Amino acid sequence: MIVTMVPECTDEQVGRVISHLREFGYQTHTLVGAGPTVIGATGRGVSDELIDQIGGLDGVSLANRSMQPYMLAQRAARPAGSRVPVGEDAQVVIGAGDLTVMSGTCSVENREITLEVARAVRAHGGQMLRGGAFKPRTSPYSFQGLGEEGLQILAEARAETGLPIVTEVMEPEQVELIAEYADMLQIGSRNMANFPLLRRVATSGKPILLKRGFSATVNEWLMSAEYILAGGNDQVVLCERGIRAFDTSTRFTLDLNAVPLVKQLTHLPIIVDPSHGVGIRELVPQMALAGVAAGADGLMVEIHPDPDSALSDGDQTITLDAWERMMASVSAVRDAVQGSMGLAVVA
Amino acid sequence: MIVTMVPECTDEQVGRVISHLREFGYQTHTLVGAGPTVIGATGRGVSDELIDQIGGLDGVSLANRSMQPYMLAQRAARPAGSRVPVGEDAQVVIGAGDLTVMSGTCSVENREITLEVARAVRAHGGQMLRGGAFKPRTSPYSFQGLGEEGLQILAEARAETGLPIVTEVMEPEQVELIAEYADMLQIGSRNMANFPLLRRVATSGKPILLKRGFSATVNEWLMSAEYILAGGNDQVVLCERGIRAFDTSTRFTLDLNAVPLVKQLTHLPIIVDPSHGVGIRELVPQMALAGVAAGADGLMVEIHPDPDSALSDGDQTITLDAWERMMASVSAVRDAVQGSMGLAVVA
Amino acid sequence: MIVTMVPECTDEQVGRVISHLREFGYQTHTLVGAGPTVIGATGRGVSDELIDQIGGLDGVSLANRSMQPYMLAQRAARPAGSRVPVGEDAQVVIGAGDLTVMSGTCSVENREITLEVARAVRAHGGQMLRGGAFKPRTSPYSFQGLGEEGLQILAEARAETGLPIVTEVMEPEQVELIAEYADMLQIGSRNMANFPLLRRVATSGKPILLKRGFSATVNEWLMSAEYILAGGNDQVVLCERGIRAFDTSTRFTLDLNAVPLVKQLTHLPIIVDPSHGVGIRELVPQMALAGVAAGADGLMVEIHPDPDSALSDGDQTITLDAWERMMASVSAVRDAVQGSMGLAVVA
Amino acid sequence: MIVTMVPECTDEQVGRVISHLREFGYQTHTLVGAGPTVIGATGRGVSDELIDQIGGLDGVSLANRSMQPYMLAQRAARPAGSRVPVGEDAQVVIGAGDLTVMSGTCSVENREITLEVARAVRAHGGQMLRGGAFKPRTSPYSFQGLGEEGLQILAEARAETGLPIVTEVMEPEQVELIAEYADMLQIGSRNMANFPLLRRVATSGKPILLKRGFSATVNEWLMSAEYILAGGNDQVVLCERGIRAFDTSTRFTLDLNAVPLVKQLTHLPIIVDPSHGVGIRELVPQMALAGVAAGADGLMVEIHPDPDSALSDGDQTITLDAWERMMASVSAVRDAVQGSMGLAVVA
Repeated sequence: MIVTMVPECTDEQVGRVISHLREFGYQTHTLVGAGPTVIGATGRGVSDELIDQIGGLDGVSLANRSMQPYMLAQRAARPAGSRVPVGEDAQVVIGAGDLTVMSGTCSVENREITLEVARAVRAHGGQMLRGGAFKPRTSPYSFQGLGEEGLQILAEARAETGLPIVTEVMEPEQVELIAEYADMLQIGSRNMANFPLLRRVATSGKPILLKRGFSATVNEWLMSAEYILAGGNDQVVLCERGIRAFDTSTRFTLDLNAVPLVKQLTHLPIIVDPSHGVGIRELVPQMALAGVAAGADGLMVEIHPDPDSALSDGDQTITLDAWERMMASVSAVRDAVQGSMGLAVVA
Repeated sequence: MIVTMVPECTDEQVGRVISHLREFGYQTHTLVGAGPTVIGATGRGVSDELIDQIGGLDGVSLANRSMQPYMLAQRAARPAGSRVPVGEDAQVVIGAGDLTVMSGTCSVENREITLEVARAVRAHGGQMLRGGAFKPRTSPYSFQGLGEEGLQILAEARAETGLPIVTEVMEPEQVELIAEYADMLQIGSRNMANFPLLRRVATSGKPILLKRGFSATVNEWLMSAEYILAGGNDQVVLCERGIRAFDTSTRFTLDLNAVPLVKQLTHLPIIVDPSHGVGIRELVPQMALAGVAAGADGLMVEIHPDPDSALSDGDQTITLDAWERMMASVSAVRDAVQGSMGLAVVA
Repeated sequence: MIVTMVPECTDEQVGRVISHLREFGYQTHTLVGAGPTVIGATGRGVSDELIDQIGGLDGVSLANRSMQPYMLAQRAARPAGSRVPVGEDAQVVIGAGDLTVMSGTCSVENREITLEVARAVRAHGGQMLRGGAFKPRTSPYSFQGLGEEGLQILAEARAETGLPIVTEVMEPEQVELIAEYADMLQIGSRNMANFPLLRRVATSGKPILLKRGFSATVNEWLMSAEYILAGGNDQVVLCERGIRAFDTSTRFTLDLNAVPLVKQLTHLPIIVDPSHGVGIRELVPQMALAGVAAGADGLMVEIHPDPDSALSDGDQTITLDAWERMMASVSAVRDAVQGSMGLAVVA
Repeated sequence: MIVTMVPECTDEQVGRVISHLREFGYQTHTLVGAGPTVIGATGRGVSDELIDQIGGLDGVSLANRSMQPYMLAQRAARPAGSRVPVGEDAQVVIGAGDLTVMSGTCSVENREITLEVARAVRAHGGQMLRGGAFKPRTSPYSFQGLGEEGLQILAEARAETGLPIVTEVMEPEQVELIAEYADMLQIGSRNMANFPLLRRVATSGKPILLKRGFSATVNEWLMSAEYILAGGNDQVVLCERGIRAFDTSTRFTLDLNAVPLVKQLTHLPIIVDPSHGVGIRELVPQMALAGVAAGADGLMVEIHPDPDSALSDGDQTITLDAWERMMASVSAVRDAVQGSMGLAVVA
């Protein structure tokens, strides 16, 4: 069962719902945060009578059977959708209707490049700066990132440009350190089912960008989000970044079907990463537009002043100029799509 | 080697290029049609001297090494792209810059529904009518289509609305019959590698809509197009309709990466079929928009006055009303994307 | 509903079951052939009373609800399994407990090689000769097979060695010609869902080797077998030949899971083709052994006196010597597995 | 470049090779352990002269260009293959020619069941006991394992039966604790690309069972092994456990092609897990036999006294009786295959 409280509910009212459910033998999982409080109950079947009873308690907005195994993440828990504030004073809010574009180099390489890129992001309409300080690399012999030095560089770029920063965390022991610097913690594709890491970031106090495992079903992805929500953190943003299919003519296959599907299934915002999703520089801007048209709440795009010299992922990284041109088109497509909001609902 | 002639070349000039290549021991394959004549040469290595020599013959626009196994289909053969005229007096031209929307029921079911649908397509900006008379069905016990009666109904709908019709052909022996009725022949996903069928439609005198096999690589797809081109038919339009991946939460995975990729690799136009590509009615309009933003030359969308009662594919079929609303958004996104043309080139 | 007759049933008894079912409004589909006659009924729900009633008719062995959409192919229709006789006087019987090994070149290349190979197959325990006269090739510029000349060469090899021959048929119009020469008709992977072809071979009077589409689910594969059975031909042998997955380090992924699964689901015999399934010559013999251990009723293996000079598929073709050595191991593994028959049942 | 030392080489000889390589500007990575010492050099191109020069140094057995990115894991580094000793006094040696069978429940559930299972494994020819104390579960609401209590139960079962134990480690912080109890640490499929975890287990002093990521290419899998080797641990055993493909009629697709392929590419032993690989209880024993025939060095099979009541993975778990019967067939097939050793080499 899933119970959504009214926005102005009191702690006492929440407590009464929980007590009631426990009396009847359920385990409860409470989601508190930027949106309405949600209480999930697991452990036994649900009668219509109980739903009516709980639905009639003070402070309860909705009580429903849970139709999905990701009880707290499902759409019915917060039908209006979640908004995820990022940065000091919530200067960026993801899922609030506008498009959030996060850009930056794949790896943080040095101070100069990072600052140049941050200024370009700021100048041409980007809202957040991305960059990897700890990098998951297929080969132990590849560049593994600058570590804490990379985090310091990102923080300096934020200080100058005001852009909140998002960076990847690879293991539970890193969470505390990275949370000191970053405004948003990224769980990479290879760690989507790293459950100890998900449990740890749930208690970090930071919003989480949860990339889809490149071979994860949408259901598994939402179950990973559920780990974070059930751990007490409701600030989760999903990121579609391409799945592994049989055709290697592109690096991955950007699964844009997942965007409107996820909007049906969950209240969490979703952004699209066309850089990893296609893996070929020349095709990235066009796929960014496709992601916007598919209904994404934002984009993550890798950029570099000189992509051919990038220390990682250069093949899928676009120049600052290409990015600036892309942003103009992104705005045009976003406006066109927002003029046709509600499409899915009426189909 | 691939040789592109100037538009105004004479038959004699084409003949001289061919003779020259044959003298040097090559086999030649000539593509004549709506665009510039192209001559492909196979069979031996190519020297720079020969390229210069051929490039200097009268009537030759370009001579290049072939970089792709699909010699005639490759972009370099017709760098400006091919345009495919469809219907009497070429009333529709696919690939000419505007968007071509083909809609209709999955199967032709009866006269009334087909006429109702055709009128709706005509009224709200569709350019072509689709409908299956011969249906490939997984089960021998499912409805297999109306056969020739279905073709007659389609022809009647064309007579009333003026919309050219596209319908599927499933075996070589059907080509003659279907070509009497249809303006464009569709090769379905399951027949993309049905080589006898490809060879037969190459001589049909009709434009061909070649759907991607749901497990075909882009390379294999273009090799299938090459069968048709090498058979003497340059009127080929590609259709991305979803690939089979590991996640069954959607029916197929619409591979929009393929759209800008195909634009790089070949001169043939490409349209997108979001109905099969996602397989869930509520998500179709949004994915149509994504297809347009990805750069498609057109769309194929299944519609029905009452999708729940459709004899096939009802789950992915939208209502006439939903289609009308979708078309308004499609126009808006197309305008936004066309205002940002040349994106890929500058990346 | 699915009704299996006793082996010694009369036509009159079959007729009475059919009449009875039709009176109740069902459509019936009758499978007659080498095994017990089976009658499938479609079109409406089934009551326990009706099952009892039909089960009590003379000549009826079993009456059951159909648990699968492939009504005639399902295991319950012939619980003891089907045996498929091949060749004059049924000299080979597939599915009868012994292992049937079919070998030969990928394409029939010429008389000398084909005879040399046929003699080797005969000498070292092979039961059938394979070879393609009509070849499905990804490129229109590749060798397309010798056509009828290839069939004549195969027939000559049979005349000398006595080995029945199996060869591929690619389109309905070829069936008559090929059936004049071949003992068994092969439907290739790319044609598994070529429904007009399936319907045509159903009336050929020949046993059919139905390869799995490389992206077909087991369910779709059995539905394709159902087309042949429903068309009146009960002599169908399945062939697992590898599926397309994400890892291209082998050409395909031999799906041996399908072997015991298919044995549960259907009464049709199944053989394994490790040559296409792995695509790397050095690994073929080991995967042949794995196929035998997985429970296959036979193997199809490509061999050539000089694989490096083969006109098609040389990379996956083994030498005659390697094949001879493989056959010794195949026998040893078959004996070991047959000593442990009934494994699956007891699990 | 890859340099393999003779078994009896001295530390001084190893030191001289390393110094020599560093003088020439290479970085070196040394693998010391149960097999011959191997030195990999990265960072620049390699001349024939240098290979000759290094090959001539005292104590060097072989010097070669590295043909693979997994420099230390590649076959050429230890052409005779690696043997991995497990347990006190190396009572089990994986890769030494005999088959190593590891069995046990999916999760450690309690003392009674674990002891019952351990006794059965001991009695019927199993060499090692498996059982999960820390479990990676898709849902945060599922049973997550007994934790340290589970490790204590496993240790008690070892004390009684003498069977070495293998159990999964999910995060770097757990390694120390689990290494106190376990004889072998398992990296699960979802953690194959958890690089911090790979680096941590490399220094654990324990042999590692590295399961293939269910969507990892063979190349990526061997790169993950390389992380462990490069971290100083040469005791790595690979485990094929099924990949994710498009057909969900089995839980995963056991990729037995990978077994002979991996034997070509690397010197590391490989075992097969048919339980996860097929996911359907009735099919597990047959696929175990197929794994043995494919050339595996061992098996991992989930068993339970009452699979239907198992706390995890019951659907793919076989009974103790079924396992006993399977073991008899496993022995027979192993003997048959070992009588045909060297198959792959001669193809």
